[in-house]
Amino acid sequence: MSRIFVGLETSFVHDLPATLDQVQKDKMNGIAAPLFHPRYKRDDHELSDTRDGPQTRSDLVMDSRGWTTSVVGNISKWIDMDATTLETRLNAEKVFKQEVAWASHLSVPAVMLPTPRHATNSSNYARILNQTLTQAQYVQFWVRIPLTTRQQSSIKAPMEYDPVVGHHATIMMETHEEEDDDSSDPWEAWDSLRARCEYHPKLHVALEITADLPSAEEIQRWLGEPVKAAIIATNVFLTNRKGYPALSQRHQTLMAQLFQHKVQFYLSGRPRHRGKILPYVQYLHFLYSKRPSQDRKAQFEAPYLDYLQAPLQPLMDNLESQTYETFEQDAFKYNQYEKAITKALEQTPADKESVVMVVGAGRGPLVRCALRAAIGANRKIRMFAVEKNANAVITLRNLKISEKWDNVSIVASDMRSWRTNERADIMVSELLGSFGDNELSPECLDGAQNFLQESGISIPRVYTSFVTPVMSSKLWNEVKVHDLLKSFETPYVVRLHNFYALAPTQSCFQFTHPKLNSRIDNRRQAELHFTAAESAVVHGLAGYFDAVLYDDVTLSIEPDTHSDGMFSWFPIYFPLRQPLRVQKGEKVVVHFWRLESNNRVWYEWSVSSGDGKYHVPIHNPNGRSYWIGL
Amino acid sequence: MSRIFVGLETSFVHDLPATLDQVQKDKMNGIAAPLFHPRYKRDDHELSDTRDGPQTRSDLVMDSRGWTTSVVGNISKWIDMDATTLETRLNAEKVFKQEVAWASHLSVPAVMLPTPRHATNSSNYARILNQTLTQAQYVQFWVRIPLTTRQQSSIKAPMEYDPVVGHHATIMMETHEEEDDDSSDPWEAWDSLRARCEYHPKLHVALEITADLPSAEEIQRWLGEPVKAAIIATNVFLTNRKGYPALSQRHQTLMAQLFQHKVQFYLSGRPRHRGKILPYVQYLHFLYSKRPSQDRKAQFEAPYLDYLQAPLQPLMDNLESQTYETFEQDAFKYNQYEKAITKALEQTPADKESVVMVVGAGRGPLVRCALRAAIGANRKIRMFAVEKNANAVITLRNLKISEKWDNVSIVASDMRSWRTNERADIMVSELLGSFGDNELSPECLDGAQNFLQESGISIPRVYTSFVTPVMSSKLWNEVKVHDLLKSFETPYVVRLHNFYALAPTQSCFQFTHPKLNSRIDNRRQAELHFTAAESAVVHGLAGYFDAVLYDDVTLSIEPDTHSDGMFSWFPIYFPLRQPLRVQKGEKVVVHFWRLESNNRVWYEWSVSSGDGKYHVPIHNPNGRSYWIGL
Repeated sequence: MSRIFVGLETSFVHDLPATLDQVQKDKMNGIAAPLFHPRYKRDDHELSDTRDGPQTRSDLVMDSRGWTTSVVGNISKWIDMDATTLETRLNAEKVFKQEVAWASHLSVPAVMLPTPRHATNSSNYARILNQTLTQAQYVQFWVRIPLTTRQQSSIKAPMEYDPVVGHHATIMMETHEEEDDDSSDPWEAWDSLRARCEYHPKLHVALEITADLPSAEEIQRWLGEPVKAAIIATNVFLTNRKGYPALSQRHQTLMAQLFQHKVQFYLSGRPRHRGKILPYVQYLHFLYSKRPSQDRKAQFEAPYLDYLQAPLQPLMDNLESQTYETFEQDAFKYNQYEKAITKALEQTPADKESVVMVVGAGRGPLVRCALRAAIGANRKIRMFAVEKNANAVITLRNLKISEKWDNVSIVASDMRSWRTNERADIMVSELLGSFGDNELSPECLDGAQNFLQESGISIPRVYTSFVTPVMSSKLWNEVKVHDLLKSFETPYVVRLHNFYALAPTQSCFQFTHPKLNSRIDNRRQAELHFTAAESAVVHGLAGYFDAVLYDDVTLSIEPDTHSDGMFSWFPIYFPLRQPLRVQKGEKVVVHFWRLESNNRVWYEWSVSSGDGKYHVPIHNPNGRSYWIGL
Repeated sequence: MSRIFVGLETSFVHDLPATLDQVQKDKMNGIAAPLFHPRYKRDDHELSDTRDGPQTRSDLVMDSRGWTTSVVGNISKWIDMDATTLETRLNAEKVFKQEVAWASHLSVPAVMLPTPRHATNSSNYARILNQTLTQAQYVQFWVRIPLTTRQQSSIKAPMEYDPVVGHHATIMMETHEEEDDDSSDPWEAWDSLRARCEYHPKLHVALEITADLPSAEEIQRWLGEPVKAAIIATNVFLTNRKGYPALSQRHQTLMAQLFQHKVQFYLSGRPRHRGKILPYVQYLHFLYSKRPSQDRKAQFEAPYLDYLQAPLQPLMDNLESQTYETFEQDAFKYNQYEKAITKALEQTPADKESVVMVVGAGRGPLVRCALRAAIGANRKIRMFAVEKNANAVITLRNLKISEKWDNVSIVASDMRSWRTNERADIMVSELLGSFGDNELSPECLDGAQNFLQESGISIPRVYTSFVTPVMSSKLWNEVKVHDLLKSFETPYVVRLHNFYALAPTQSCFQFTHPKLNSRIDNRRQAELHFTAAESAVVHGLAGYFDAVLYDDVTLSIEPDTHSDGMFSWFPIYFPLRQPLRVQKGEKVVVHFWRLESNNRVWYEWSVSSGDGKYHVPIHNPNGRSYWIGL
């Protein structure tokens, strides 16, 4: 059974092994604690080598397994890298780097960095952090950011939790000479810091959960950021009737959201409820146990969260048996197909034998749908199953025998080149990609519609792609791993998870079948105007589709209308080479083109600010990096 | 003797060779003309293959030398790539690409592209242009941009100049159904286009010189853009007392500026003054001949305009004889040194023999300055010439004999490691780089000041670097050639030419010698706030320095105080990896750090918008791409 990580934030502890023992007794997994005693602040001018004694406890107090699994190092909060004088700044830099070096030496999994004091000007902090990140090996960097600035001070007194001294005896107040009186959006401070560090993949957020919570939209934005930890002060908890700690409904909702993002939780501050620290821990585990259990779709998707895949090229490449198998398991999808075919057959005269062609029959799931539909609608049908993949044709011919498909003819041909005098009343296909037309359904069906009756029906009848700008430094960094132009100009099929959509999706391209106008042109251009719900960074575009199979029978992966339980398609992600910063309420203009040459189809895309001043370069000119082969 | 290129813009000409003959008789160098007759507009739906006759004249009318040197192809102005319907847009794309393909086939040096009709939304134009640029071979692309939008229509009637028809017989009016009523800054239309084409190096501007001129600042901004041609309509010319064409004073100033940028000039429109077209041509040549002749400095610099050089590393590398020779020729600089030493000596008692040390003596120019200064000040001196470069020491020892430097001791040593009991009254050095401290003068003189008298004088006494954000897609592209992170994080010494400074320079770092405080720290941090005089793109930072040698004797390459005729230093250019767009009146915040480790000194830099929203990543963390060896 899966568990959450709950840790304790403490002040400097003298006897670390004893503390960790106690923490484990309290059902917790580790601690976040300063690696250096704050007393060292006083003589920081000569910090490094002139003192006789060691500056902190030895790494020998624990074996390395203890350090690497159970301790997060809090970098001293008093370090002010943007202090007024150069000398203070240089000294702060020295102390900061010494603490990070010590943390690296200990191989702690992460260091917790202080909240930038100067929200709009943390330039020296950014520079030192950027230097450190550039040279970092294993350690992750968590910048501590409060959800709101109003109650920031309430959790600045970490718990004294040293078993040598005794439990929760006194509160070690750290003095804060300068409080940041900047009440601006804490996200801005984070954004300004990480942008200067070029969205470094080792730079994460440790969110301080405050008693006041920001708007749901702002919380949603945080879920698009690389949040690795959440710090919850004991005074954020309410008291239930029995005197135990509990969280408000809004906080519970937030926790449920954080549970989905594998966040570590750290309790902070003196216990203020019945039963010392344990009840807080138990309450968090209780909340986690209350979350709805994963459905089949969620289980299927779990390993694919934020995992980038190149889109299928089923026209150029043949699908593998395993791929067919996966898709055939999507009961929802084939139920919809069966419904659609049933409805279409019901429109035909009761005594008519309809010709049903399945174009791109694969291993036959749509053939089965049609056969079931004929029974459901009480109609006679004659079928053709057209398939270009010779391997799938072997399966189909075996199925014809084993399942007695007497009224089904298997046609081993590309639907674009098959020649026949037969004319279909109903043509059924499943050629849609995550972005609707991106597996060339339009081009394939244009060819196939030659053998559709004049009044014939195509299932699907119409499909539409949808787009929205998204923030996701996670995905942007996944693309950047290769640091190639080609990677940044390729769309990826991906179960988007750690992302924030700046606005509701908008429809992009639409295709209807059969096409009745004489001049068929599958090129498209779309200009979409979005309004950013919050200030954010556009790292790319999320793409979806929906389709009308027949009448009111639809499929959709568009978030607002997503078909329940359908798992055949993940969204598609079009990256941007350069992130584009936009302001709350600002227009974001997305341009999308679907273009073609003799043997290829490709997309080009770009994003601009609404005032026409800021543009990213147009991506993928001439399909130089990515195209779909015809 | 250098000449300007003057050409003629004409409507479609039927007999090209005859036209070019006539153009040459009129003292012009070529023409800019449509490659396709505008009549083809009417049947553009079926433009390419269904007509029987050819769409335009054959390439055989001229040999390729004629095409490649004398003809610029005007792309048809009626092509509207951002028309309302997709069909019209797709057709416009086809025609545009056909015309460009034909121009490439002819190997004309450039095509002239129509002014974007939709100033803020020329997205499809941008997409098609971007595709075309990506595949372009030799042809350059000149986008026609008027200086002001007010008088745009005045030069939309190109001259009918077909000798077969007769000179200037009729005006072929092109009809313009839609005039762009957008009266916004034409620069915005250009910027929006080229940003989406990622500042492509083949994309240039053909400026239409209008009767009304924009502000001097806006003209200055154009001089930072890749302007390759200027189109001057005949109706922009005034009439002089004799009836001949002449330009207003402001236009003459503009022409003088354009002359410095090797721009081609194209006359356009019907002759409106005495003597047909020739007097216009002659007038332009006359203006060119009137320009002030180049001084020695300008001649020296001419081959280096916008040419990027890696900065010298005189501390790690030894300079070559040729380099010494070049720098020794800078009379102004050594005059200033002589003046400074004279003034310093005059402060000493008349009977005192002063010890003068030249640290970094090279091949001896400062030794000569000091010897002359001693005569000028009527003082006795004893000298030490300290030089680490063994090759230069050979020269110095020869000079000591040949020029009878009896009072000069040659010391073959690095000034940082020389040990002596002698103490200098005056220490003279010339260790400054384009950015002042960037050749490590501070570190060298820190070492050398050990053998300076307590009240001794350092010449120079103080030096200061200066910075300003600049726009220069030319330089940005020069850096981008390699498309390496390293190239974008290296400063270059360069005689900046095709650039626009967004604001006056501001001082950045300052060093004073000798340093009297006990704790010497040459690390620095500067945060500079500039206000953009015009909307522009920051492609990098220009760096300069000035120095006080002694008293009021100074050296400067800072633009406002540049020492007359001094040519030893070009500016320094710090590129930005990503251009940053800023608005007129907006603050541009520049952060600069001078940092050091055991054996290196380096700079880090970044640029942000004044509101703290837009940041470029911090460049060169830890000196990963560029550093100066100690």
